[in-house]
Amino acid sequence: MNSKYRVIKFKKNKFEKIDDLISVEEPLEISLKYNDQDKWVISSLSITMRTPGHDEDLVRGFLFNEQIIQNLDEIDNIESKGDKVGQYKIQNKILVTINNSKNINISKIKRDFLTNSSCGVCGKSSLDALEIIKKEKTSNIEPKLTKDVIIQSPSILKQNQSEFSKTGGIHASGLFSSDGKLISLREDVGRHNALDKMIGNALNKGQINPQKQFITCSGRLNFELVQKVLMTNIGLIIGVGAPTSLAIDLANRFDMTLIGFVKEDSFNVYTNNQKVSVN
Amino acid sequence: MNSKYRVIKFKKNKFEKIDDLISVEEPLEISLKYNDQDKWVISSLSITMRTPGHDEDLVRGFLFNEQIIQNLDEIDNIESKGDKVGQYKIQNKILVTINNSKNINISKIKRDFLTNSSCGVCGKSSLDALEIIKKEKTSNIEPKLTKDVIIQSPSILKQNQSEFSKTGGIHASGLFSSDGKLISLREDVGRHNALDKMIGNALNKGQINPQKQFITCSGRLNFELVQKVLMTNIGLIIGVGAPTSLAIDLANRFDMTLIGFVKEDSFNVYTNNQKVSVN
Repeated sequence: MNSKYRVIKFKKNKFEKIDDLISVEEPLEISLKYNDQDKWVISSLSITMRTPGHDEDLVRGFLFNEQIIQNLDEIDNIESKGDKVGQYKIQNKILVTINNSKNINISKIKRDFLTNSSCGVCGKSSLDALEIIKKEKTSNIEPKLTKDVIIQSPSILKQNQSEFSKTGGIHASGLFSSDGKLISLREDVGRHNALDKMIGNALNKGQINPQKQFITCSGRLNFELVQKVLMTNIGLIIGVGAPTSLAIDLANRFDMTLIGFVKEDSFNVYTNNQKVSVN
Repeated sequence: MNSKYRVIKFKKNKFEKIDDLISVEEPLEISLKYNDQDKWVISSLSITMRTPGHDEDLVRGFLFNEQIIQNLDEIDNIESKGDKVGQYKIQNKILVTINNSKNINISKIKRDFLTNSSCGVCGKSSLDALEIIKKEKTSNIEPKLTKDVIIQSPSILKQNQSEFSKTGGIHASGLFSSDGKLISLREDVGRHNALDKMIGNALNKGQINPQKQFITCSGRLNFELVQKVLMTNIGLIIGVGAPTSLAIDLANRFDMTLIGFVKEDSFNVYTNNQKVSVN
């Protein structure tokens, strides 16, 4: 599933507006209905950010791969639930009824997974849920980011990664000043961990100064990464790869500038081009 | 943090043994100690697969970015705990004491996170924990995989992805027969979701036949992806990118062949080359 977004593309030394197709990302809350000591129990099992479509296959594979069931026969019914929310009008809840609860690994469920019964992210628009904890827009940036600073930041990130040149298999997040100087960098096999480490380090050193800074991440940009940057009030995020729909929507909602697909001579501005210098 | 692994590299039409540096991946269990209605409570908050190092920054950033704390001053103490486990002799538990529990968002903790108090993965070697639910080795494969089948599978995957050509931002997993034919394919913004969807679909159609099949995933290979393939008994996994240390160790433990860094004329066999034809 994908959706059309209006994007400002920089290429061949000029900016132009184009339509771009973006992979859709939406939360899915998986709940189980099972019999536990002669009582029917409904338990929220997991929330995953997925591309809508083939949700039943996702649930079958997830339950089997996590060994909550040993066999698909143990699934009696799979039912999409909840209101049709968000711009794509999608049901973001799915309930799986297990017919033979004797076989299912209830201790594993209880040990490994969420036991909450309500999901703020899936029950309404994910963006509405976030607005409860975050009210203000993100910061402006001074000076506006130039083309050169945008294009150079991923290579500065890579040059300063100590691990990437060795293993080729590790993500990085970098905090930059608006004139393109690297302030803080952290690496991790997990994108979200690299970002948590970098922000944790910068907070601890008192280095965060939203009006003068932006953040660049290796790889693609999803909801989780944009949400983490949002909490710092920094108003501009750059990803080397493609963004998801929810990353763009979230950036939009909080006036964050989201830039992706940065190459040697091109990049895309997905949201709020006010923070980018077009000269 | 990285570690040296012995790898069989195919390049310039020949196989050779080389040493390769691999990014280390290990679980980290984050627990919080906080005062809830005049009682001190220790609650397991989250388990993340991270590269060891800068764990304190990871925890600071994570707690702030998830808005469990609003300010680093709310952290009184951060302490690494637990036995030094695994080949890297690392403590995989970290306990954060919050000094002002009035400010911390306890309802958010209760709503969003695990409430379990024991973690099978972090308390001992992750591989030992998995052996509890999975005893046998993965399947052999017939015929052995040829160089051509290995090199072609990522491009077959890409050619058959309906979404990638449109958005450039979506992962895929494919089930292949040992002679290189694509059996099932699913796409998703999440690598783990693409694999769950593909396996769920194949299971549902009765297509899984481990002795005759392998799985190819776009992107890098981590613990989670190898663990999911393991449950199908399929004994060979191919990743387009780099594997993590734990992905390799897990494949090794269950005699799974793990192949990574597949390019047009080269690839690396990280484990168990018995399932690859060297002719």
